[in-house]
Amino acid sequence: MSLADQPPAAALVFQTLLAHGPLTRAEVGRRTGLTAGAITKVATPLLADGWITELGRPVVERASGRPATLIAVRAERARFVGVKVTGDELIGVLADLTAQPLATARAPLGSRDVGTVVLAIARLVTRLREEAGAAQDGAVHSIGVTISGDVDGQTGTVSYSPFLDWRRVPLAHLVETATGTPTVVENDVRALTVAEQWFGAGVGLSSFALVTVGAGIGAGLSIGGRVVSGAHGVSGEIGHLPVGGTDRTCTCGNTGCVEAVASTHAITEQARQATGDPELTMAEAVRRAHDGDAAVRAVFSRAGHVMGLALAAVANLIGPERIIISGEGVASYDLYADQIRQTFADHAFGAAADCDIVVRPLPFEEWARGGAAVAAQHLFAPVK
Amino acid sequence: MSLADQPPAAALVFQTLLAHGPLTRAEVGRRTGLTAGAITKVATPLLADGWITELGRPVVERASGRPATLIAVRAERARFVGVKVTGDELIGVLADLTAQPLATARAPLGSRDVGTVVLAIARLVTRLREEAGAAQDGAVHSIGVTISGDVDGQTGTVSYSPFLDWRRVPLAHLVETATGTPTVVENDVRALTVAEQWFGAGVGLSSFALVTVGAGIGAGLSIGGRVVSGAHGVSGEIGHLPVGGTDRTCTCGNTGCVEAVASTHAITEQARQATGDPELTMAEAVRRAHDGDAAVRAVFSRAGHVMGLALAAVANLIGPERIIISGEGVASYDLYADQIRQTFADHAFGAAADCDIVVRPLPFEEWARGGAAVAAQHLFAPVK
Repeated sequence: MSLADQPPAAALVFQTLLAHGPLTRAEVGRRTGLTAGAITKVATPLLADGWITELGRPVVERASGRPATLIAVRAERARFVGVKVTGDELIGVLADLTAQPLATARAPLGSRDVGTVVLAIARLVTRLREEAGAAQDGAVHSIGVTISGDVDGQTGTVSYSPFLDWRRVPLAHLVETATGTPTVVENDVRALTVAEQWFGAGVGLSSFALVTVGAGIGAGLSIGGRVVSGAHGVSGEIGHLPVGGTDRTCTCGNTGCVEAVASTHAITEQARQATGDPELTMAEAVRRAHDGDAAVRAVFSRAGHVMGLALAAVANLIGPERIIISGEGVASYDLYADQIRQTFADHAFGAAADCDIVVRPLPFEEWARGGAAVAAQHLFAPVK
Repeated sequence: MSLADQPPAAALVFQTLLAHGPLTRAEVGRRTGLTAGAITKVATPLLADGWITELGRPVVERASGRPATLIAVRAERARFVGVKVTGDELIGVLADLTAQPLATARAPLGSRDVGTVVLAIARLVTRLREEAGAAQDGAVHSIGVTISGDVDGQTGTVSYSPFLDWRRVPLAHLVETATGTPTVVENDVRALTVAEQWFGAGVGLSSFALVTVGAGIGAGLSIGGRVVSGAHGVSGEIGHLPVGGTDRTCTCGNTGCVEAVASTHAITEQARQATGDPELTMAEAVRRAHDGDAAVRAVFSRAGHVMGLALAAVANLIGPERIIISGEGVASYDLYADQIRQTFADHAFGAAADCDIVVRPLPFEEWARGGAAVAAQHLFAPVK
């Protein structure tokens, strides 16, 4: 049975179970808006083919007071590989249907050449299969590759990746050819947002924003249980909000972008100017700031101010329940956290300031897991 | 039969028919993700009680090639009054179930006192009932009052309205008591966005933003068929995005807000400074700019630049298919349109610049119609 042939209501039931864990049929009905008859109709083939299962012990339904059986996704029914591609490394995870990791592995990239990267992905997938496959069936249903930049998930094409300097690379097709396994490609921040929505700090929230700070500054927006993808493929580009109030030129060619002030690269450059040391590294800038160097501390503070303005813009427009801050930049978060919170509080409009801001270091394995979650999402045609 | 007792799937079918007009059951299934059985189950009581109807002549289904019956909302089944409250006037419309206007009326407000406004709303509702009721049954199902500011639609409370200087006014309850008719209250821009989504320039779009320019600057965001309401009640506050790059103080007390540069009031104030004429009105500023006064033209140009930055922020974060610009400020739109488009094009990130920008003057009667649409939406419990 192919899940893609199932009616859209099946996807709705399945994704609800993925996001919420085991539920009674009545609870599925309340969350999806489907009638009991419709749920029975879509659940029957899913049960028969082992995608979902009935848990043994019945629970007492709160609403009716009667015993009811929980249904749940069968985690072992399918496996997925998620791969996060960075400029110099691949991070891979083999995961079950609920995106629980069964094995992880990393591989350095000798070059950013498309052929080299595709081959390295194929080797990583083989390694992950072997690692987990010895004891069990090693079949992989599909692969989810995530990468920063402008990615068209529909066609599996990397339209533009600044870090790899790729343009119009049909990556899904190339990885499929190299591995013989169906492959989907997604923007890495959107994929991580899917993982946070299903399994992380976004579970159960009506809306949240995941902001990642590092070499680039991006965001994934989850509203009403769906990650916003943008009508033209662009969304969550918080790094290019024009709140920088500076003449510094951004990687995108514009001035005034958040990234031009608050990215790792921008902080390093500004710290070099502030100290007059053209060789200063980010690590040294962090150390100097911790040692109390006022000029370097001011650079971090300025980055925090601009980040605070960007978060306020997100809160004023979307009003998310929570903003999660992650990315490699959170390692030095203590240097600008106070300024972020202060500026956010100053510029969030009215009750938008009630938005909960949490910091969550997420290792690259979590990003790779996002790829597995996106692959699992593609079991069904996307719900319209 | 109360629609609020119907299963959520009924709301989904009904709202799909409201937004798309007559559809075959198969088309409803494709758009809602409900199975044929589920649609038949929810449609039967809706048909029996006259909320929807089958159209006489069958159409040939594209997918199957077989004849199929169209089902549609019965516009005459229920009536709603929508009222838009401004600082000095009420604008009312009596509309059918598809928010088609049957009568409109305006009433000046002698005072902004809560009691006075509530009484004036009650009188306006009576007038609209009488006007349309002579020939037909004048019963009104419910009233939708829309008002600018921080409005809690769930409780029907105006938390804060700057123009009326109201705080924590239980307006829905007061209007219900005065009229004897169930009443809902919603932020006016969000209500207008619902109307545009169902019947206006937003029909059929995956996402759009409605930006209103005038005494205040606000926005409604529609994503995936739903108007974003914000977890804490705040959303679409484009007027308070911190992109102004100025020390001018906003009505909210902050500096750097869009409203502090581009609202009607801000433009007038800046034109007074530029000309040295402390009595200059907005109308005179527009006339001077049309006459080529460089100093006043620069004020409009600056407002256009800041508006362009704000629209780019919306496009970069949400990636809407279209941005609709409306509000009383569009009367002088020619004075800053070029600057808006130029700045937008400069700061929209990548394909986000493909977002369609349209200008649409919408009279206050359309805003009042938004109130009727929101009242009609409340026929059902909101879809989760």
